Amino acid sequence: MDILQRQGFYGPPAGESTILGVEFSGTVVSVGSDVFSEWQIGERVFGLVYGGAYSEYVVIEAAMAARLPNKISYAIGAALPEVWLTAFQALFWNCSLVTGEDVLIHAGASAVGIAAIQLAKNAGARRIIVTVSSQEKIEFCTSLGATHAINYKSDDFKTKVAEFTEDRGVDVIVDFIGANYWDSNLASLAFDGRMVMLGFLGGPVVNSSNLGPILRKRLTVRGSALRSRSLAYQIKLKQQVEQEVFKPIFEGKTDMRAIIDREFSWKEISEAHRYLESDKSKGKIVITVD
Amino acid sequence: MDILQRQGFYGPPAGESTILGVEFSGTVVSVGSDVFSEWQIGERVFGLVYGGAYSEYVVIEAAMAARLPNKISYAIGAALPEVWLTAFQALFWNCSLVTGEDVLIHAGASAVGIAAIQLAKNAGARRIIVTVSSQEKIEFCTSLGATHAINYKSDDFKTKVAEFTEDRGVDVIVDFIGANYWDSNLASLAFDGRMVMLGFLGGPVVNSSNLGPILRKRLTVRGSALRSRSLAYQIKLKQQVEQEVFKPIFEGKTDMRAIIDREFSWKEISEAHRYLESDKSKGKIVITVD
Repeated sequence: MDILQRQGFYGPPAGESTILGVEFSGTVVSVGSDVFSEWQIGERVFGLVYGGAYSEYVVIEAAMAARLPNKISYAIGAALPEVWLTAFQALFWNCSLVTGEDVLIHAGASAVGIAAIQLAKNAGARRIIVTVSSQEKIEFCTSLGATHAINYKSDDFKTKVAEFTEDRGVDVIVDFIGANYWDSNLASLAFDGRMVMLGFLGGPVVNSSNLGPILRKRLTVRGSALRSRSLAYQIKLKQQVEQEVFKPIFEGKTDMRAIIDREFSWKEISEAHRYLESDKSKGKIVITVD
Repeated sequence: MDILQRQGFYGPPAGESTILGVEFSGTVVSVGSDVFSEWQIGERVFGLVYGGAYSEYVVIEAAMAARLPNKISYAIGAALPEVWLTAFQALFWNCSLVTGEDVLIHAGASAVGIAAIQLAKNAGARRIIVTVSSQEKIEFCTSLGATHAINYKSDDFKTKVAEFTEDRGVDVIVDFIGANYWDSNLASLAFDGRMVMLGFLGGPVVNSSNLGPILRKRLTVRGSALRSRSLAYQIKLKQQVEQEVFKPIFEGKTDMRAIIDREFSWKEISEAHRYLESDKSKGKIVITVD
């Protein structure tokens, strides 16, 4: 998202800060008078905002802020909100994933992919299939709970999904690619399958498509996003993820965890963006403002 | 459905009767021993079956059978199940239509369209926009509750929908056309809009499509059907429609009504099919077995 916004393709909602960055951690330095009974100055905090997180100070709606326990690092706090809320929304709100179902997660080693693999595993998904771009990422995703991994550079994922699922297809697909994968995604869905599209990294234009599978298999295809959602929607999502994911993570009651690939100082922000664009990272890149 | 099945394009689910016809009315002549406390021989009945309704006798699961009051004609009974269950499923189960939303119903004067217009009106939809093929059908649909009607032969529905909704688009689309309407349908949906596709009368293959609106407007596109659904699903749907639609219709507590265009004797079945194929009917065509 940060790269797209930097390139001018993904602005914040109208009226929000045009500074990059949608998540942060830190300490509370000021509290609005309407919420000062809920938050104290000095408390450790993390959260998701519509924009402006590449900053020394950030303003957040109190209900969107989450407490960061002392034993959890600021880096972990900053790495949690956007990807876990996005992955949770995608799997459970958008696609109604339930125990025993099969799921295909594209870009498995991306930050959202990493969260989605772990959430799917935690929810009791049966097959958790990912697509990635290297053998190293295959091993990484498998270590997190992926049951099958496909290197999309060397293998056709549609063929592999059919093989892994005995031609049944998967119940849920989390897609970031769009047009390039459209037909293969439709082919890879089982009856009553659901696909959520979170991005169009492969562009939005398909040349000739057969929509037949949508009707024949009663598929559901849904576009989703987090940043464009209303505050009320985001608060509801944040509250559920805080309860079901962040709290168990902080209390050590789950195997789920945030994975940080690398930390950069804010003085190295250009280098951090270049590293992210290199497609080599496995996990979050965290920027430290010092 | 009957025409497609006759042409060999739409068979019944495996193991079901290959005789045409999915709905009927009549009297009970035999009751299974496991349900004889629920149904008596001689009771008036109507219902939806997977196939075989073009017959003197039809077998139906007891839970799928509905009682037909004495004051309601057999013709009305036979005209109710398939279209009302389909339209109800499409608007409420597939598209979650709620009060105050705008809806676009293609093929407004078709039997499913007629039911959908009335259900949308009854649910408090704001704008109920239909597409039809003649001025006569515009007047017909308007009389049932459509607030706007578009003759797709003389007008571009996308342009008209934008005009009627002040460029906002509609919240829900019920589509039967498929490929030909795909791009215009995506363009006609509002933010968080939902489209259900019930048929591909215009074929399934789109030549070049921009999927951008799916992501940008967070759209949901869903293929649906009734005949391919499990018995458990159909029973649940039937029970809800019986309670919320058929009962009020029978008790005269709603404006909703079944509309029969014409009745034919079973000896004129070829003529009935030809009439249906002529695209002139407004409402159900009922076949009488005598």
